[in-house]
Amino acid sequence: MLIDRLINRITELSAPIVVGLDPRLDQIPAYIKEASFTKHGRTPYAVAEIFIQFNQKIIDQIYDIIPAVKPQIAMYEQFGAQGIEAYLQTVAYAKSKGLIVIGDIKRGDIASTAEAYSNMHIGRVDIDGESVEIAQTDFITINPYMGYDSVEPYLSDCKQYDKGLFILVKTSNKGSKDIQDIVLANGKPLYTQVGELVSTWGKNFIGEHGYSNIGAVVGATHPSEAAELRKIMPNTFFLVPGYGAQGGSGKDLKDLWTKNYGAIVNNSRGIIGAYLLEKYKCDEKDFAKANRQAVLDMKADLEAYIS
Amino acid sequence: MLIDRLINRITELSAPIVVGLDPRLDQIPAYIKEASFTKHGRTPYAVAEIFIQFNQKIIDQIYDIIPAVKPQIAMYEQFGAQGIEAYLQTVAYAKSKGLIVIGDIKRGDIASTAEAYSNMHIGRVDIDGESVEIAQTDFITINPYMGYDSVEPYLSDCKQYDKGLFILVKTSNKGSKDIQDIVLANGKPLYTQVGELVSTWGKNFIGEHGYSNIGAVVGATHPSEAAELRKIMPNTFFLVPGYGAQGGSGKDLKDLWTKNYGAIVNNSRGIIGAYLLEKYKCDEKDFAKANRQAVLDMKADLEAYIS
Repeated sequence: MLIDRLINRITELSAPIVVGLDPRLDQIPAYIKEASFTKHGRTPYAVAEIFIQFNQKIIDQIYDIIPAVKPQIAMYEQFGAQGIEAYLQTVAYAKSKGLIVIGDIKRGDIASTAEAYSNMHIGRVDIDGESVEIAQTDFITINPYMGYDSVEPYLSDCKQYDKGLFILVKTSNKGSKDIQDIVLANGKPLYTQVGELVSTWGKNFIGEHGYSNIGAVVGATHPSEAAELRKIMPNTFFLVPGYGAQGGSGKDLKDLWTKNYGAIVNNSRGIIGAYLLEKYKCDEKDFAKANRQAVLDMKADLEAYIS
Repeated sequence: MLIDRLINRITELSAPIVVGLDPRLDQIPAYIKEASFTKHGRTPYAVAEIFIQFNQKIIDQIYDIIPAVKPQIAMYEQFGAQGIEAYLQTVAYAKSKGLIVIGDIKRGDIASTAEAYSNMHIGRVDIDGESVEIAQTDFITINPYMGYDSVEPYLSDCKQYDKGLFILVKTSNKGSKDIQDIVLANGKPLYTQVGELVSTWGKNFIGEHGYSNIGAVVGATHPSEAAELRKIMPNTFFLVPGYGAQGGSGKDLKDLWTKNYGAIVNNSRGIIGAYLLEKYKCDEKDFAKANRQAVLDMKADLEAYIS
C-alpha cells in the first residue's frame, strides 16, 4: 500500500522529510529566468518554463535523499493554464525519479464536485469513454469543513488506485485558532473532533505498518496540540507543515514520533530558497547544492529528537 | 461597490438568480461535441473547445435575464491546463456580456498561499515587474477552516480591486452536519460562530444597500438554519446553493429575503441541463432556449415567496 511504501522509504533514508516545491519567481536564480524572459517575455509561458527548469534542477539534486515532494498548486495555478501545465510536468518529473508526490491542493466541495477534483488529482477523467490520467499525484491534501460526503469521492479513488489523502485537522498558521480551536460542548477543541472523524474515515485503509492511507495535516507550530493528536489518532500518519520558515523546529516535533516515525515533515522555503540564506550562500549556479545541504541539515535536526 | 452593482442588477431584473456554469460532457448536446472530438480526438483540447462553445450558447440566451453566473472551477480543472483555459475563457466571455461572475473555487490555505490564489482569481500576478490579470472573476468562494489570516490576503485584493468573497458558513450538502453542526460550549452550532466571524471580517466592506462585499455561502437545503443565519448576519449577502437538483425550492427560501433581497440563489444542473428534463424536452439544437425557460420558471418560483 501507498502508506507502507512511504514509510519504508522514510526508514531506508532515515528522512521523514518532504520538500515543498513552491516556486516563487523572486527566489529563482536569475540565470534560469533570463533565458525564458528573453524568449517569451514576462508572460505565464515564461514562468511555466522557469518553474519546470527550477524544479527539475532541485529534484535532480535531492531525489536520492528524500522520499517525497509536495508541490503547492497555488504557486502554479496563479499563472493560469500555463501554470497548471508546469504543475503537472513537475509532478510527472518527480514521479519519474521515484519520488512520492503529495499534491497540496486543499480542495473541499460537495460530492459531485469532489468527484471532479478526485478524477483529476488521484483518479482518471472520462472523456466520452476514454479514460485519461491528468495528474499523477499519490497523495492530496483535503479540507474537511463540508463533512463526510465531501470526502467520500476521494476515498473511492484511494481504494481503486491505491492513493492517499492528508486531511486538514490542525494547521500550522496562527489563524488556525479562530475556528479549529473553538471549544465544543464536550469541553474539547474542534480540531480533536475533526481528528477523530479523520481517523474513522481512514479505518479501511490501514497498511502493514499500522498507518492509514488517509492521513492528517497537523502543524509543527503547535507542539502540544500535535502531541495530543498523536495520542488520539494512533493509526493516522501526519503531514507536518510549519517547519523552518513558519517557525517550527526539530525540538517542537519530539512528541510526534512513534513506531515507524508516524509523520513526515514539510519544508519549502527553507530548502528551495536555501542558497539565499546566509548559512548556504553560494554562486547562484550552485543553488541546488545548497538545497541538498539544507535537506541534510534538516535531517540531522529531526534525528536528534526522534526516539 | 460590487455588492451594490449586484443588488441593483438583481432588482432591475427581479431575478435573485445565479446560473451555475458547471458543464458535464454527458449533458452537452451531441452536435456540439462531435465536431471537436473529430478534430482533436477524445482529449482535454476537445473538452475545452466543447465547454467554451456550450457555455457561450447558454450565456447568449440568458445574459439579459440574470445578473450573474457561477462557474465551478472543478468541472474545468479536472481536464488539466486545457480545462483551466476553458474556465478563463468562460469567465471572460461572461464578463464581456455584462454578467457578474462568481468563481466557485472554495480555496483555503495559509496567508502566503492564499495570496497566490487571490492574485490569480481577484487580483493580479506580478511577473518580474509586469502586472498581469489572469482571471476576471468578481467574487470567489472561500473556505474559512484555517481562520482569519487565511482570508486576509483576499480581503486586501477585495479592497484594492472592488472584488468580493462568499465564505462557506453552512453548505447545502447532507454531510455539512458532520462539522458545521457540531455543538459548541456556548450551546450553539459551529456554523453560527463561523457566521459571526464572517460578518466581522466583512465590516469594512459594506455598501450603500447595507450589505458587504464579503458574503456567505448558506445552503437552500437547510431552511431553518438559513433563517437563523439571516437574523444574526444582517449585513451579509448570501450565496445560496442547493436549489433544484440538490432539493431546495422557493418555499424553502422564504425566510431569506429581507430588504433588497439579501441573497442570490444558484441553480446549475436545473438550468444548463434543462433540455434533458421531461418538462423542457426539445430538439438538442434548441437546448439554450430550454435554459432560458428554466430561468424564467425559477424566477416565478422564487418570486412567489419573496415578501
